Amino acid sequence: MIEIRPLSGIGEIAGGCDLAAELADAAARTGLLPCAQDILVVTQKIVSKAEGRLVDLRRIEPSPEAQRLAGVTSKDPRLVELVLRESTDVLRAAPNVLITRHRSGVVLANAGIDRSNLGSADGDSALLLPEDADQSARRLHEALAARWGSAPGVIVSDSFGRPWRMGVVNVAIGAWALPALIDRRGQRDRDGRPLEVTQIAFADLVASAAGLAMGEAAEGVPAALVRGLAPEGSACAAAALVRPLEEDLFR
Amino acid sequence: MIEIRPLSGIGEIAGGCDLAAELADAAARTGLLPCAQDILVVTQKIVSKAEGRLVDLRRIEPSPEAQRLAGVTSKDPRLVELVLRESTDVLRAAPNVLITRHRSGVVLANAGIDRSNLGSADGDSALLLPEDADQSARRLHEALAARWGSAPGVIVSDSFGRPWRMGVVNVAIGAWALPALIDRRGQRDRDGRPLEVTQIAFADLVASAAGLAMGEAAEGVPAALVRGLAPEGSACAAAALVRPLEEDLFR
Repeated sequence: MIEIRPLSGIGEIAGGCDLAAELADAAARTGLLPCAQDILVVTQKIVSKAEGRLVDLRRIEPSPEAQRLAGVTSKDPRLVELVLRESTDVLRAAPNVLITRHRSGVVLANAGIDRSNLGSADGDSALLLPEDADQSARRLHEALAARWGSAPGVIVSDSFGRPWRMGVVNVAIGAWALPALIDRRGQRDRDGRPLEVTQIAFADLVASAAGLAMGEAAEGVPAALVRGLAPEGSACAAAALVRPLEEDLFR
Repeated sequence: MIEIRPLSGIGEIAGGCDLAAELADAAARTGLLPCAQDILVVTQKIVSKAEGRLVDLRRIEPSPEAQRLAGVTSKDPRLVELVLRESTDVLRAAPNVLITRHRSGVVLANAGIDRSNLGSADGDSALLLPEDADQSARRLHEALAARWGSAPGVIVSDSFGRPWRMGVVNVAIGAWALPALIDRRGQRDRDGRPLEVTQIAFADLVASAAGLAMGEAAEGVPAALVRGLAPEGSACAAAALVRPLEEDLFR
């Protein structure tokens, strides 16, 4: 049996706060002692906040290209400027849609920049993705291991839209101490045929499972512990989930 | 807490078998009495098998277009012929890649046609998607409700690749008696701003969570029960997860 337990009671996270300590306190309050076989899923939002990735839009000067794309997309030109700074490539710009390739290689809307639940009613704040979400996961894992002796794998999750499906799902933009991608190439099915599905986006599945216990709205829970998993294969970071540019058929 | 319990011990499923009875037996063996608040996730593979969607490739005559696409993709021309018959549109054809829009509107590889674990070593079988996976889910839900008095929501899951991410994830191609898509349009965040993430692909999240308890390899488990969910919103089928053609920016 697999269990997903929300870690509730985590308050507003400020820049520079000790997020590992906050998560450890929340686990203790929930009566959980996470072990090395568990996976702790943490939303990008609190990781970015703890890492001080909040930007004051009033300080952002939109470039002419940002102004142009803001016209196409009906978005705030300052936000578009931030998106362009965070991205290497614009895939699609259409009314209310701006899909880019983030510097990490990840393709997503608005370079993952977030404007909800930032604790500022003025609407002039924006939250960037972590500089390197795999390293964010590694640092959390190591800080928790120092505290507990051993620590669960850590996933930094975000919610993404999909080109042909409605609604968002949670995916892993950072992962540490777990096999983000499980590779079954070379294995065979019961009939001896090579398996057709050879790579499993394990960290994305775990992020989506945890997403069921978290939430985007006011009552949102920013972390969950997943217990009872036994993935095959060796650990790799979420960078392994990014499809290489040369394989992209939908640029 | 959310729990995911695999339903194991389900044997080979033959065309015309009473799949609801097989699932009820597996739940009983697992010591589970599913309730209306649970969600039962069943793989497309056993649904298709039970619905007799197995095709003998030796009876398929590839058209000239199938022959041409088989050359481009290095795929079996008979399989490509089946893919074309099941699809309304070819989005991409490249070496080892054939992405189409299935008649249901779903965009996926090979029109979802499966050749692994079909119980035939000769390699001349192929398994099509259910004719209408939402109706498959409805029939299973109703048969289980007749047996148990009430029944869980039912999801028919499949594993899909993604254009910009490596590995497959489980998604819902059929759903009944649950909100496949949760719509939060009009809701506001803690700061009073309109929520940016307004639609949640709930059934896809549940399918992915269940995917952690199932599997594609020889030891695969074809069904799982997810317990402890409390989704907001009213029930809608998985058809709601298909992005309308006119919104497709990546044709």
